[in-house]
Amino acid sequence: VTPADTPGLATTGPVKVVGTGLLGASIGLALGAHGVAVQLEDASPAALALARDMGAGEPATADSAEPTLVVVATPPDVTADVVLRELRRHPGAVVTDVASVKRIVADEVAGRAGADGERYVGSHPMAGRERSGASAADADLFVGRPWVVVETSASHPAAVLAVRALAVDLGATPVRLGAEEHDDAVALVSHLPQLAASLVAARLVDAPEGALSLAGQGLRDVTRIAASDPMLWASILVGNAAPVARALRDVRADLDSLVVALERASEDGPLAPGAIGGLTAVVSAGNVGAARIPGKHGGAPRRYGFVTVLVPDEPGELGRLFSEVGEAGVNIEDLQLEHSAGARVGLARIAVVPAAVEVLEKALDERGWRVVAE
Amino acid sequence: VTPADTPGLATTGPVKVVGTGLLGASIGLALGAHGVAVQLEDASPAALALARDMGAGEPATADSAEPTLVVVATPPDVTADVVLRELRRHPGAVVTDVASVKRIVADEVAGRAGADGERYVGSHPMAGRERSGASAADADLFVGRPWVVVETSASHPAAVLAVRALAVDLGATPVRLGAEEHDDAVALVSHLPQLAASLVAARLVDAPEGALSLAGQGLRDVTRIAASDPMLWASILVGNAAPVARALRDVRADLDSLVVALERASEDGPLAPGAIGGLTAVVSAGNVGAARIPGKHGGAPRRYGFVTVLVPDEPGELGRLFSEVGEAGVNIEDLQLEHSAGARVGLARIAVVPAAVEVLEKALDERGWRVVAE
Repeated sequence: VTPADTPGLATTGPVKVVGTGLLGASIGLALGAHGVAVQLEDASPAALALARDMGAGEPATADSAEPTLVVVATPPDVTADVVLRELRRHPGAVVTDVASVKRIVADEVAGRAGADGERYVGSHPMAGRERSGASAADADLFVGRPWVVVETSASHPAAVLAVRALAVDLGATPVRLGAEEHDDAVALVSHLPQLAASLVAARLVDAPEGALSLAGQGLRDVTRIAASDPMLWASILVGNAAPVARALRDVRADLDSLVVALERASEDGPLAPGAIGGLTAVVSAGNVGAARIPGKHGGAPRRYGFVTVLVPDEPGELGRLFSEVGEAGVNIEDLQLEHSAGARVGLARIAVVPAAVEVLEKALDERGWRVVAE
Repeated sequence: VTPADTPGLATTGPVKVVGTGLLGASIGLALGAHGVAVQLEDASPAALALARDMGAGEPATADSAEPTLVVVATPPDVTADVVLRELRRHPGAVVTDVASVKRIVADEVAGRAGADGERYVGSHPMAGRERSGASAADADLFVGRPWVVVETSASHPAAVLAVRALAVDLGATPVRLGAEEHDDAVALVSHLPQLAASLVAARLVDAPEGALSLAGQGLRDVTRIAASDPMLWASILVGNAAPVARALRDVRADLDSLVVALERASEDGPLAPGAIGGLTAVVSAGNVGAARIPGKHGGAPRRYGFVTVLVPDEPGELGRLFSEVGEAGVNIEDLQLEHSAGARVGLARIAVVPAAVEVLEKALDERGWRVVAE
């Protein structure tokens, strides 16, 4: 259910949004589309005007009605201060924030809010874009994404309910986690992969051209997120420094064991004691960890079958392929496209439910596609 | 040009293939499809029979005609011995191997082949599948892939030409590299990404369920290849131990600087001296490295525009989308599908030439698709 399909929202408003960057403006847009009154505030008058012009809401004034909910969408380094200020300013409102780190905010609010702390509930919508700012805002930004709701020991149940309702109204799936659990989780599923991608990509800075011409889909997948904004990532990482440092130290221990194994093989030959064993241990652990990542439909990864097809690199060919998959009555569950430098064909690897593999192979074969072995 | 489209091959044969796993059997299939006589040999009678039954060729016998080309497709730890044996057995034949490491083979052959060494040229088709063995063999396995050709200082030009011709006949793009260049290159573009994926995925083995429910596309991309076979990878890695160890030590130096920066932020707060600077340095280097990876069409990565569309998770919807992209006259250059656990919609991020972005957005909007901001 996307916002536009929802006749009524649980969130009635007025909602005040403090900080009108990508997240704040997107929240304003989505709520405004349903007639919820949105009041905007930002330290930068230009950013505020842009969000207003995008349709995210109206600037808050002294005459604005008291908000029932305040969403703090400022950078993480000022989030706790702004939350505390808004709790004092609006004694009848629930206050939440959407910062990507939760413990530093929760600790500060718990230490300084006093009785007001019962109206604070932290949250973190797992959504973003490669572009930032209100100009990239989108009412559908949160649709289908997890939205972590972090209640403190002081949070009132009604405040928790209001923040969960906001997540649902915006099309997201609320996920309840503690602040430390959240920060440990994003260190592993978001911050560590980001740094691993950067570490691998950084090795390519001085690589010869010839080496890069051998790049395949594996390297492309591992390094895709390495193109991210360094300053943005540095701010996120310093806000979650301890859990990320812990994850990196654990990685370093495994990395050290790989280096030891490889140095043995390098000095005493491929069959040196400990070499093969040290390498398989880490790759095997990776097998186990990767198998735990939930698939598209949540829960354990579904076992899909795969049909791989050669696609000429010409206009319309991929479109024709998918149209003919549809004609065969088969739903595409997932898809990878694979290319090599200089190739005039690509490979489309189509994931389907296992029962559909043979049906699809036959249907595509009959239509003249080159189906290749998995 | 794929093998099936090619009326005549430069490779005339007979070709002898020693080692009938995935690569050997695929080479046999592709050559056999064009009437080239293929002789098969394998240490395992069962593997040999399977490759024959797959149509990869006929078992070599004492009566077989002398081959003009011998392809050694055995595991890397026995490749040099087999190459040397085949050079002696077939004094008129060019001998190549397809092992994924090249220096250890080239050194051994150079040291022991004597005058026969002029008939040896190493090679490495950059192709593989998640499944191994002749049962996964495919005549189109090499189509559109780089195929590294590694001549030694002793290699005769005619032998080099024969191996390049084999690559072209099988639809691959020959890439000329020295043995050390090759091994250094695959350490960076293939072996290091594999290990990075394993290292990140290994951190998920003990992660709480709640953490995994926050996994998004970034984690999925970084860890996709972590599902690879540990024993296969250990054999590849010990055969390229020194270059991979060197790459990992360089990664460890960057990793150490990240840990130092994060520990400063953890102890003295987010704005501790050196914290932000240490983190941005590595992420920025990753930006530079990632930008060097060639795009689909080779050369520098092309700047695509992106159109992102919400796709309901229902049969036929993705097919309908691509069919309507085709109707709009727009070619899909690349594609990412993005899902979150439990979501009832996915996001399709379609890469198109920049000039087509507005056209496509408009066309999809008119057809009722929800186009979301990039």
